[in-house]
Amino acid sequence: MSNIPYKTYLEESEMPKQWYNVRADMKNKPAPLLNPGTLKPMTAEELSVVFCDELVQQELNDTDAYIDIPEEIREFYKMYRPSPLVRAYCLEKALGTPAKIYYKFEGNNTSGSHKLNSAIAQAYYAKKQGLKGVTTETGAGQWGTALSMACAYFGLDCKVFMVKVSYEQKPFRREVMRTYGASVTPSPSETTNVGRKILAEHPGTTGSLGCAISEAVEVAVGSEGYRYVLGSVLNQVLLHQSVIGLECKAAFDKIGVKPDMIIGCAGGGSNLGGLIAPFMGEKLRGEADYRIIAVEPASCPSFTRGRYAYDFCDTGMVCPLAKMYTLGSGFIPSPNHAGGLRYHGMSSTLSQLYDDKLMEARSVEQTSVFEAAQFFARTEGILPAPESSHAIRAAMDEAIKCKETGEEKTILFGLTGTGYFDMVAYQKFNDGEMTDYIPTDEDLAKGFAGLPKV
Amino acid sequence: MSNIPYKTYLEESEMPKQWYNVRADMKNKPAPLLNPGTLKPMTAEELSVVFCDELVQQELNDTDAYIDIPEEIREFYKMYRPSPLVRAYCLEKALGTPAKIYYKFEGNNTSGSHKLNSAIAQAYYAKKQGLKGVTTETGAGQWGTALSMACAYFGLDCKVFMVKVSYEQKPFRREVMRTYGASVTPSPSETTNVGRKILAEHPGTTGSLGCAISEAVEVAVGSEGYRYVLGSVLNQVLLHQSVIGLECKAAFDKIGVKPDMIIGCAGGGSNLGGLIAPFMGEKLRGEADYRIIAVEPASCPSFTRGRYAYDFCDTGMVCPLAKMYTLGSGFIPSPNHAGGLRYHGMSSTLSQLYDDKLMEARSVEQTSVFEAAQFFARTEGILPAPESSHAIRAAMDEAIKCKETGEEKTILFGLTGTGYFDMVAYQKFNDGEMTDYIPTDEDLAKGFAGLPKV
Repeated sequence: MSNIPYKTYLEESEMPKQWYNVRADMKNKPAPLLNPGTLKPMTAEELSVVFCDELVQQELNDTDAYIDIPEEIREFYKMYRPSPLVRAYCLEKALGTPAKIYYKFEGNNTSGSHKLNSAIAQAYYAKKQGLKGVTTETGAGQWGTALSMACAYFGLDCKVFMVKVSYEQKPFRREVMRTYGASVTPSPSETTNVGRKILAEHPGTTGSLGCAISEAVEVAVGSEGYRYVLGSVLNQVLLHQSVIGLECKAAFDKIGVKPDMIIGCAGGGSNLGGLIAPFMGEKLRGEADYRIIAVEPASCPSFTRGRYAYDFCDTGMVCPLAKMYTLGSGFIPSPNHAGGLRYHGMSSTLSQLYDDKLMEARSVEQTSVFEAAQFFARTEGILPAPESSHAIRAAMDEAIKCKETGEEKTILFGLTGTGYFDMVAYQKFNDGEMTDYIPTDEDLAKGFAGLPKV
Repeated sequence: MSNIPYKTYLEESEMPKQWYNVRADMKNKPAPLLNPGTLKPMTAEELSVVFCDELVQQELNDTDAYIDIPEEIREFYKMYRPSPLVRAYCLEKALGTPAKIYYKFEGNNTSGSHKLNSAIAQAYYAKKQGLKGVTTETGAGQWGTALSMACAYFGLDCKVFMVKVSYEQKPFRREVMRTYGASVTPSPSETTNVGRKILAEHPGTTGSLGCAISEAVEVAVGSEGYRYVLGSVLNQVLLHQSVIGLECKAAFDKIGVKPDMIIGCAGGGSNLGGLIAPFMGEKLRGEADYRIIAVEPASCPSFTRGRYAYDFCDTGMVCPLAKMYTLGSGFIPSPNHAGGLRYHGMSSTLSQLYDDKLMEARSVEQTSVFEAAQFFARTEGILPAPESSHAIRAAMDEAIKCKETGEEKTILFGLTGTGYFDMVAYQKFNDGEMTDYIPTDEDLAKGFAGLPKV
């Protein structure tokens, strides 16, 4: 066994003091958000109706490579960070691979995922601006939980619109949010205009992230002292999540290791964007090369089968347009899809990087994802979130390839969180009742038909 | 803010290589287990019908202060240990106390608690002995989950009898165990003689740990290549759990801190016994003094209202007799009691230490426990297990006393685990529907009436 420990932790003094803004190093900048009425780039003034002022600045800033992390946020980070960079010795042994596998584990906090990294930042800026509270949506529930925790810490009100299917299937997620003082409303709901409209048009709908975003934005814009916050997709979120990659890079430097490939699951892109940020920076600056792989569900394949186009971020079409790899804002993954990674679009930053061929993407089917999840749980001990297990699947596949070729590649993947609130899905898998779903070209064509003409 | 970090981690090289056996330093040794037929101390031969051979040796060994941790177990420990010693800066601030509060957090593993420390040891010795598998009981579910993980790691079969009320209320706990390959049977069941007898005598019973132990022991004794394992109460379990206290002590030494008081929740005593072990050792050897406080539920008050007497460890009376603080093997906590800490008895080792006035005990009611849990979740971020929250309650009470007196006491408590699978109880609390229950003297008299005449 090598002298590299199972877990590498940074000292608190070694934790990042600045976030890294990958856009500053991109030659082709991500396309700006557009006002859906004028089709002109959204101004700071327009955005500040929806978002906190400082977050608007971060959203629009594509020139400063480093942005200071306020001390209050760094103090909060110390409650659950640094997260460990883990050498997966047991997984390597079980696979019999010469590959060296590492994962950055973000699940050791009550929100159960990396989402807390941005939640606390967004809550901090809301508090600093003197707001009463924030609104948001949540799908699988990690983001809503994270935001509830962050709001409890700063004494902010927190209104969460939870995709109805998750609200019903995950009552315990809802209770965690309530324990942190948040109010949780199933979406679509009768409490908003857009919710009532969607319910009228699609009675019995189980909801989608796109619907819940529309409702949360409507409430934020219509309530004195509230703003809307989002847990993925946005540039500002990727900025905050860069703390994952920065810690990772520092830990690798500490043990003298350089990864060959970096693998992350991708829904809206918050984890992947954060994990790869400093590595992509080196790649953009020509200082180093890494293979970077986004892994998405075959049932919601925005990178691998989507269009790179301007699209609505939400179903109600109340949000700005974003240029991104998208399946169309009307796309809703099949109900048999378990867990998150169900957003129709993808971060504009990652979309541009992908379009520039600076990263790859692949899709995986969910039964093979849960096979990897179970294998990982039994060998490495941690019960992974379904989302994270997409990255596990790809990392295992790459490690198995190394076994075949004899190559000693160093693989890093992002283990974004734990699956404690996903046991309904695990039960289906344990009972042999889990199914796969790959949308047909006709299914996708319906989504593409709804793309705006820009 | 002091220069003590939020979290102190040991290096892997600093992790304990030996467990500490507090019995070696006890002047008054814990009373031996008795054969219920002969009323004579159980011999190694008699015990080896039920337990693995090496665990029998550990159970009976009250002379060796240190016992080597086999390398295979130390390697497994590295997957989730060292656990952090956390300075609760945010809790201190929220309470406005001059006290310095630390907690040892054992919840950062999938079993969600400290139980894994002994589960992996017991599974290791079973594997080493060439057994096919092990049987056990689980109440709240942490122990069953931990044992499932440990058995998956060593490729052992794992049969868990889960107290029926938990089996029904916690289907997700059951699924975690199944994900790790364990079979889970609600207890009392029709699959054992003792289960059928209990069901005949108490139709509709929701079960108890005592019943489930009887069933698990029956199956182990009656199956070729199986032994029974237990997650608390036994001397061997306290021995394995000493890794908690040893890490704690080493981390305190590293930051130059000495706690004034040590607080732990107490059900069967595994966490408390492990947490206090090296500190109690110093106390027994006259090297240092610490206030040590056991916290138990008012609804199951074995230390504070029990009798120190020989009693059956299980309801079916198939196990040896243990001398312990007990409420009688027929005692079952009120159904409104949430979470674990519901065993009728208490570790013989801790019972002797308590009887020798080397530690204190107090009981707390569950609504005040959940108030503390919620307060802790909102300030320190971690959603605690109901069991652990008994210790939080007492630690907060002591910190509030310090606020009143101005004393800067250093308080250490054991945060044994997370509450992700306890959301039914949290929901009751959130909805204002949680109730308290304190057994009357008459209730307790019924339990005492069943004590054997020894």
